[in-house]
Amino acid sequence: MNEKIPVAVLGATGTVGQRFVSLLADHPWFEIVSVTGSERSEGKAYGEAARWLLPGEIPLMVREMHVKPSDGSLQGARLLFSALPARVAEGVEPRLAAEGYIVCSNASTHRMGTDIPLLIPEINADHLALIDRQRDLRGWSGLIVTSPNCSTTGIVFPLKALDDAFGVSQVHAVTMQAISGAGYPGVSSMEQYDNVIPYIRGEEVKMEQETRKLLGELGEEAIEPADIEVSAQANRVPVLDGHLAALSIGLRNAPNLNEVEAALAAFRGVDGLPSAPAHPLIVRSEENRPQPRLDRDAQDGMAVSVGRVQPCSVLDFRMVSLVHNTLRGAAGGALLNAELLVIEGYLGEAAREVAFA
Amino acid sequence: MNEKIPVAVLGATGTVGQRFVSLLADHPWFEIVSVTGSERSEGKAYGEAARWLLPGEIPLMVREMHVKPSDGSLQGARLLFSALPARVAEGVEPRLAAEGYIVCSNASTHRMGTDIPLLIPEINADHLALIDRQRDLRGWSGLIVTSPNCSTTGIVFPLKALDDAFGVSQVHAVTMQAISGAGYPGVSSMEQYDNVIPYIRGEEVKMEQETRKLLGELGEEAIEPADIEVSAQANRVPVLDGHLAALSIGLRNAPNLNEVEAALAAFRGVDGLPSAPAHPLIVRSEENRPQPRLDRDAQDGMAVSVGRVQPCSVLDFRMVSLVHNTLRGAAGGALLNAELLVIEGYLGEAAREVAFA
Amino acid sequence: MNEKIPVAVLGATGTVGQRFVSLLADHPWFEIVSVTGSERSEGKAYGEAARWLLPGEIPLMVREMHVKPSDGSLQGARLLFSALPARVAEGVEPRLAAEGYIVCSNASTHRMGTDIPLLIPEINADHLALIDRQRDLRGWSGLIVTSPNCSTTGIVFPLKALDDAFGVSQVHAVTMQAISGAGYPGVSSMEQYDNVIPYIRGEEVKMEQETRKLLGELGEEAIEPADIEVSAQANRVPVLDGHLAALSIGLRNAPNLNEVEAALAAFRGVDGLPSAPAHPLIVRSEENRPQPRLDRDAQDGMAVSVGRVQPCSVLDFRMVSLVHNTLRGAAGGALLNAELLVIEGYLGEAAREVAFA
Amino acid sequence: MNEKIPVAVLGATGTVGQRFVSLLADHPWFEIVSVTGSERSEGKAYGEAARWLLPGEIPLMVREMHVKPSDGSLQGARLLFSALPARVAEGVEPRLAAEGYIVCSNASTHRMGTDIPLLIPEINADHLALIDRQRDLRGWSGLIVTSPNCSTTGIVFPLKALDDAFGVSQVHAVTMQAISGAGYPGVSSMEQYDNVIPYIRGEEVKMEQETRKLLGELGEEAIEPADIEVSAQANRVPVLDGHLAALSIGLRNAPNLNEVEAALAAFRGVDGLPSAPAHPLIVRSEENRPQPRLDRDAQDGMAVSVGRVQPCSVLDFRMVSLVHNTLRGAAGGALLNAELLVIEGYLGEAAREVAFA
Repeated sequence: MNEKIPVAVLGATGTVGQRFVSLLADHPWFEIVSVTGSERSEGKAYGEAARWLLPGEIPLMVREMHVKPSDGSLQGARLLFSALPARVAEGVEPRLAAEGYIVCSNASTHRMGTDIPLLIPEINADHLALIDRQRDLRGWSGLIVTSPNCSTTGIVFPLKALDDAFGVSQVHAVTMQAISGAGYPGVSSMEQYDNVIPYIRGEEVKMEQETRKLLGELGEEAIEPADIEVSAQANRVPVLDGHLAALSIGLRNAPNLNEVEAALAAFRGVDGLPSAPAHPLIVRSEENRPQPRLDRDAQDGMAVSVGRVQPCSVLDFRMVSLVHNTLRGAAGGALLNAELLVIEGYLGEAAREVAFA
Repeated sequence: MNEKIPVAVLGATGTVGQRFVSLLADHPWFEIVSVTGSERSEGKAYGEAARWLLPGEIPLMVREMHVKPSDGSLQGARLLFSALPARVAEGVEPRLAAEGYIVCSNASTHRMGTDIPLLIPEINADHLALIDRQRDLRGWSGLIVTSPNCSTTGIVFPLKALDDAFGVSQVHAVTMQAISGAGYPGVSSMEQYDNVIPYIRGEEVKMEQETRKLLGELGEEAIEPADIEVSAQANRVPVLDGHLAALSIGLRNAPNLNEVEAALAAFRGVDGLPSAPAHPLIVRSEENRPQPRLDRDAQDGMAVSVGRVQPCSVLDFRMVSLVHNTLRGAAGGALLNAELLVIEGYLGEAAREVAFA
Repeated sequence: MNEKIPVAVLGATGTVGQRFVSLLADHPWFEIVSVTGSERSEGKAYGEAARWLLPGEIPLMVREMHVKPSDGSLQGARLLFSALPARVAEGVEPRLAAEGYIVCSNASTHRMGTDIPLLIPEINADHLALIDRQRDLRGWSGLIVTSPNCSTTGIVFPLKALDDAFGVSQVHAVTMQAISGAGYPGVSSMEQYDNVIPYIRGEEVKMEQETRKLLGELGEEAIEPADIEVSAQANRVPVLDGHLAALSIGLRNAPNLNEVEAALAAFRGVDGLPSAPAHPLIVRSEENRPQPRLDRDAQDGMAVSVGRVQPCSVLDFRMVSLVHNTLRGAAGGALLNAELLVIEGYLGEAAREVAFA
Repeated sequence: MNEKIPVAVLGATGTVGQRFVSLLADHPWFEIVSVTGSERSEGKAYGEAARWLLPGEIPLMVREMHVKPSDGSLQGARLLFSALPARVAEGVEPRLAAEGYIVCSNASTHRMGTDIPLLIPEINADHLALIDRQRDLRGWSGLIVTSPNCSTTGIVFPLKALDDAFGVSQVHAVTMQAISGAGYPGVSSMEQYDNVIPYIRGEEVKMEQETRKLLGELGEEAIEPADIEVSAQANRVPVLDGHLAALSIGLRNAPNLNEVEAALAAFRGVDGLPSAPAHPLIVRSEENRPQPRLDRDAQDGMAVSVGRVQPCSVLDFRMVSLVHNTLRGAAGGALLNAELLVIEGYLGEAAREVAFA
């Protein structure tokens, strides 16, 4: 079988939508057959509707594609990547799931739904089991799977490694987040240049809730949130891409520094997903790394990097972690979820055959 | 008596030295009579030796002054402001103190000396009593008083307010520091632009040690460091001036949010010092302040601003604080110390008369 | 007479409006009695309606003032400063002039009107004579005077000096303009950071037309545009304030370099206007000045700086010039025009008495 | 024949040296066998000596290679890429050429030598004929070929296209250059942030001289410089990579806008060189392109982009052009020259066989 799996990108003209388009342009399994956008974009060619902000040209395959409304015809795509704004996703995504679509969403709306997997393949692939419950409860023939907030993604990789090894009890996280996280036009140059803005609406609560859900255990009815106190302070800094977080972490057991480093280094990737990095958690030993500009593109932007691992005199250990916020932290994360769904058979046998071809 | 007190600026050509020159240009009590610099600058006119990086012109009074070596003739100045590099300050400052000079130093070298006051007038003016011990011990006819690290200065104001009211037991501080803190040429554009560097040499230890000394109690032999666990993670961000710190703070007593805000708002300034701000600790209630660009110049750069005061789920309360690193956090802080020394009589009666004229 | 002249600021909440408010807060002649804004702001306190982006606090005198609609009651102000968007100014400003108001506008709308003075006091104060024609033609009891585009302002000072001395025949100007020129939110961080945008809508034509009008001669019916070929290429660079222009200039006569420098240095300011800089055109001799960050605030942001004056192998001489775009290039320029109107008696005798008190 | 051609990089630890290393890491013909550096780096592993500032890791093949002195053993490499500082290149490069090495230099030192080709394969490949004269004159068994200054490279592509079609008589060029052009540490953040610096030492003269040589004709004794008046004003802006130039161009013939655009679009690349871009001169039609961040990496950073082509009221046409300064404008340009030398047989038959394998 030679054909790729047809997919659509919802909200394709925005910052995350553009990353979806860019990542899907040469994807071995998937092929974009439809892009959707707001009323403002509807009917225009994608190349005209999208204010393309990534280096390089708009992929040829979508440049001339006409932007459709997000609730319109999806041209045979059954797998949908959603970069819809939260308020639009609220109504549209469930309706599409009810109609049989497989929705891999990067929107925040449904992440905390008790029957909605909030998923990172390397961290909690077992949470996919929630989908049975989702279908029972909602009667959907399709489904919704969500990927977490970009900042949450950046901190949950080291936390997972440490939680498995020693049990994490407390985390104080201070983020220094890139401007691409606010989308386009997003942050005004007049506010952000030569400045740090110590506030990002909703971000701190998302980091606190999502971290506990991602590290939580699959219970009978829902995910049992991990018993971790999480306190997050979010800041916006003048950096284009790459969210850095300074972390102080309390552990239930009392490892030494070597053991902590070993546990981080032992984090393993998943096999068989084309967008999965070989080393999803990179541990750096230089005194001044990771840095957003130098490390955000590690493993094609799909790896999280940690460094400056040290004992902490307040909690137990401190470190910094870095994630590419629009790749692993957004479009790349949702794409990886879709690849997992294919492998696990949620798109049916024909799709699995594409993957295993 | 009409004459001002003659002063010299040591290390006058660098970033902090320029701030000293700028602040002293129109000072009501002090008048620059000598500027010193490295061998490279010696003998040149200040206006030629200093690569002036502050907006506006070099003050006329020093433009034509010849730069002297730092151990040379100080033209009758007895009060010295030191912006010397740490390794130079190590030998030069004690020698000058031994010769009878009053040295108000911003260098890090002697800050932790057991007989050296590390001083902020609004916070620990009583530590000046160490000078008696300093003179006994060293036999100096002059003295050395130091001002703290710029980042320490930014966090110790809210900590002092909270420590007095509730007792502070723990602090996790993550700083986002401006490039002017590294001096000139300091940080390369190639490293810092579109980037955060999660490391500043020596900074974290300074913040941890100096905070405990500043909040410590004057004992018989030395300052008894405050019993506070301090953990600091220092980051450099692309901002020109203004160090922001995100703080999570553990308290011994258990106030509510209103009581915390009230304690911060109750912080009082000192009277009678011309460079002392009326409100040294500004509490902001907006959801996104303080910000470096908007708030660093508050009260002529001599006030610390705090905001985003909230309960913290890990320690007790969290907030952000901001200091102008080269004004209150460096030259302005040392200048305020000098003003206190004048008032307290350490420069003699004639100098007090200038102040009280 | 102790009372100041009551004034209103139209469009007071935007970037230029905020500069008006800031400049008028301590003005010796003028006192803000009303601020106007768009529907979004109407009825709110100014301190709440304006997203204040200047360092320092909103002046107390306007913080609690309620924002009025721009065509509403102006609380007794007869002198109006307009920072209205061009499309709003189109209808509102003539209506207010017809009602008797003196409108000092920074909007681009009416600048090229044949009976509308486009005015810089140091350059073409004689163009004020157009007002007679304006009143004849339109029957207004009030009047409109406009100040030029920010980039035009930056280049017209050296051009005026050279035109008077040698006759200017050609100018090629390439600007590097600050983001504050685009207002708020203006330029998205996502577009401008680590980037130059070689396009600013309408800017090039404005520079070409306005330069010729400003340097033109007062004819019987209108201003006779100066016979100068002007070609402008406008670029936006990541700088907060200060428009830099690289100029190559063709002259009718053939001076040598010294004569050119002398002509620039000989440019004189106007007397008697409190916002007029003593030296409106500063000639710098360093090899790397003027620079936006170091020189934009020269003479409180009201002076234009030129430097790097050299022979040019294509046209005759080249140089760079710098203007603070929201001060001299916008609000400050319009304020200076108002001061000239007062002195010249356009606001009546009572107002002149305030000025000459 | 399977072996690649062994090459060395001189001055490999700096900004341009790193680009050489990065470009050569996977080159189809060349393989790095030696890297050289200053005394400070000598004997260290490259991975330790180089402060790597490019995204991604140091290529494995050189990480452990020991840095040699630039006049030491070159491990069998005959082809050398020089990123030496100008003053070092002055002595070292001729000595190496005398010893038989083929030196592809990016240093400015020898560019204007009458017997030294200043070469861009797409523009003046015929200038290679100077090598015969070079060898006659100097008696070298090796040779030196130079690549032009980064800013020159950016403007000479459109000028070549226009010169061939219409004859160029005059050019006024204003550059907005990236900080990577100054190397590391290069420009201090304290000077460049929120600022434009209207001066780059030596740059303007280089642009003026090199442009005339590149577009000149091969004479019997030397290159006859093109009869073009070039005036350049160089500025440094806060952008990481990518030099933008605003150009006003006078032509000998009088084409219309369509003809100018057609001449630019007709510019052709060279065949058979693996680093040569298919389209070395990209003509963009958007109103706001090219932009450094979006367009610098076009064709792997080896294409020059032009846009905003318009009539000019001073000279004949104006436009903006963009070049990636450390790729096409430095290391990439020199690499392309080396590829041309291989094809043309200057490295001997064995090397040609590698290329044509």
